[in-house]
Amino acid sequence: MRIKPGDGERLDDLGIKGYQIIQKKDGFCFGMDAVLLSSFVKVKKNGNVLDLGTGTGILPILMEAKTPGRHFTGLEIQSEMAEMAARSAALNGLEEKIEIVEGDITKASAIFSHDSFDVITSNPPYMVDDHGFKNPNDAKAIARHEILCRFRDISGAARVLLKHSGSLFLVHRSYRLSEILNCLINDGLEPKRIRFVYPYREKESNIFLLEAVKGGKSRMKVEPPLIIYEKPGQYTEEIYKIYGWKPEEV
Amino acid sequence: MRIKPGDGERLDDLGIKGYQIIQKKDGFCFGMDAVLLSSFVKVKKNGNVLDLGTGTGILPILMEAKTPGRHFTGLEIQSEMAEMAARSAALNGLEEKIEIVEGDITKASAIFSHDSFDVITSNPPYMVDDHGFKNPNDAKAIARHEILCRFRDISGAARVLLKHSGSLFLVHRSYRLSEILNCLINDGLEPKRIRFVYPYREKESNIFLLEAVKGGKSRMKVEPPLIIYEKPGQYTEEIYKIYGWKPEEV
Repeated sequence: MRIKPGDGERLDDLGIKGYQIIQKKDGFCFGMDAVLLSSFVKVKKNGNVLDLGTGTGILPILMEAKTPGRHFTGLEIQSEMAEMAARSAALNGLEEKIEIVEGDITKASAIFSHDSFDVITSNPPYMVDDHGFKNPNDAKAIARHEILCRFRDISGAARVLLKHSGSLFLVHRSYRLSEILNCLINDGLEPKRIRFVYPYREKESNIFLLEAVKGGKSRMKVEPPLIIYEKPGQYTEEIYKIYGWKPEEV
Repeated sequence: MRIKPGDGERLDDLGIKGYQIIQKKDGFCFGMDAVLLSSFVKVKKNGNVLDLGTGTGILPILMEAKTPGRHFTGLEIQSEMAEMAARSAALNGLEEKIEIVEGDITKASAIFSHDSFDVITSNPPYMVDDHGFKNPNDAKAIARHEILCRFRDISGAARVLLKHSGSLFLVHRSYRLSEILNCLINDGLEPKRIRFVYPYREKESNIFLLEAVKGGKSRMKVEPPLIIYEKPGQYTEEIYKIYGWKPEEV
């Protein structure tokens, strides 16, 4: 298997454990939401982890670096993305710990053993696909719009594949908050911990990070606000800490 | 009717339009949550407003001062509280605009006309009554614990009494977020606007302010974080603005 980046690909440094990731020069690249989610996730020692819709494989790679989990599986429907994610895992010498599976989230309960994961993560397509003009072969559109899976597919897969008391971690758009909490509750995944992300202190929240526990009791924690920018062009201290990097001039 | 405060009562200045309120010296007094809710509520010109569990009548009085609503009804189950709230309304010359009705939230749909209110507000008992050792005659316990009404009674009353597209505004505990959103959605009251209140920037949220719209579509706004304290003993500018008051030394 060719591992190194080929034509039309680029190699990005992840700023942790020397890990790198292969991404398409003109395709969907991972964003801050994946990085924030990787820092929000809690995986216990030896935990078995599944990432639904792994894309470039960014979440399994970052979680391998940040948590003591034993094994990380990434499920990705797009063949080219799945192949590239597997090469990124190999590039970092993580073939033993990270497995990329090409497959469909809506069929995940037929691909994996039921009640088998301690943790499931997802940075799913955010946008409701209610216009129908997207190109179904467009990798960026598939990553951003609910073309090939809807939120209830993610929730349904987690319900079946998580162990009892296992956690689903996700990042999603704040404008869909009530719909998403409602869907999770109906699937027996109890929202336990949520953190709202606000671009600035005085702005509306655009995304949130959530932990839901299979079979959990109804009582949740709303964590302190996560503010991204101190001012235009300057992140808050917390964001620099999550990235493990700060420019000298700040 | 005697209006002025009697034995065991005190008179508090509300800092707006010269309004005052009568409260029990040793009873339940209104808190910051009521004040925050009164500033979160939006009432259109000539709006007809109902406050479920009005207690001292603080919300109708503050809303009369802050909004262009036409009429405000406060429903209160505790006879002594209802009588005191009516005296507070009279004390401010608001008998024509504020009516206090003594009655039970669980029977509200038999007391008021269906589909008749533009706005319903509630600062309900927060705490789940799962221990059973509270004194059912204790006014403070009734105001704080779900002894005489549960959240689904509030939600159910709003479902029946609100006009189509009318809004329910409430303040509640953040740890009950998912349960409350779920209950509202099931009653056809769509959460549209939420604001989390954090005591300090780095602390968890303890309460939230919410607007749900009867028959609304599923899409919501998570407003900027509302921070209470700049540091111990000093409120943030926004809180001083809501109270319309700031000590000189700050």
